[in-house]
Amino acid sequence: MTSELHPKLLVSDAEAAIDFYTKALDATLDLRVADEQGVVNHAELTVGSATLALAQSVKEWGWNDPDSVGGSPVLITANVPDPDSTAARMVQLGAELVIPIENRPYGKRQGRVQDPFGHLWVISGDLRPGGRE
Amino acid sequence: MTSELHPKLLVSDAEAAIDFYTKALDATLDLRVADEQGVVNHAELTVGSATLALAQSVKEWGWNDPDSVGGSPVLITANVPDPDSTAARMVQLGAELVIPIENRPYGKRQGRVQDPFGHLWVISGDLRPGGRE
Repeated sequence: MTSELHPKLLVSDAEAAIDFYTKALDATLDLRVADEQGVVNHAELTVGSATLALAQSVKEWGWNDPDSVGGSPVLITANVPDPDSTAARMVQLGAELVIPIENRPYGKRQGRVQDPFGHLWVISGDLRPGGRE
Repeated sequence: MTSELHPKLLVSDAEAAIDFYTKALDATLDLRVADEQGVVNHAELTVGSATLALAQSVKEWGWNDPDSVGGSPVLITANVPDPDSTAARMVQLGAELVIPIENRPYGKRQGRVQDPFGHLWVISGDLRPGGRE
């Protein structure tokens, strides 16, 4: 069941993005809608019980990917069991670690990743006792 | 309980944004964290059972709002009982209706709104039988 509120990420390459998110976040592809040219205009993935949607950017529709826009004003926060491991996997798959995963004074272990499509992620989990700050 | 995946919207005026989203989406403010200058660096709202986070943009941290970036590559999809009513309320509160709320061939009644902070929303609900296309 699609949640009441979820982000739909516009990307320059929807197929590569589906591949990346399924591997990086252990997501399941639930829905993939493409037009006659094979352009994905809507895909929905499930991450645990949350929904992540995405689509190929289409300038004429005002659907702009991060490169076209010049960045992103939205941080997608992913609460995961092992943020260090998730971030490492994302980097292995082509993402960039922007801010290291560390224990934070506000009680979370968090860092920031920019995925290969330019989207910004806060990868977040529980504090690691005695872990690297 | 914060969901596994949720968007954190960077905005030029966090207080105004909290006010807008609580009124526009009937959201509840669960958490508001501000620094000594009163700048909100983290707020969490609940929309039904979903989480919406936001913070004041801070250029030095790489936290850029839509105006600074030049737009947004993320569409926040809100599934609501009455999309026409939600969109109208958002517009009344200062948003811009970008694409009208209409029955769509893929089985949803949807349209697009740009909120006063530049964030893009897909307001979505069930088809309205015999309603305006």
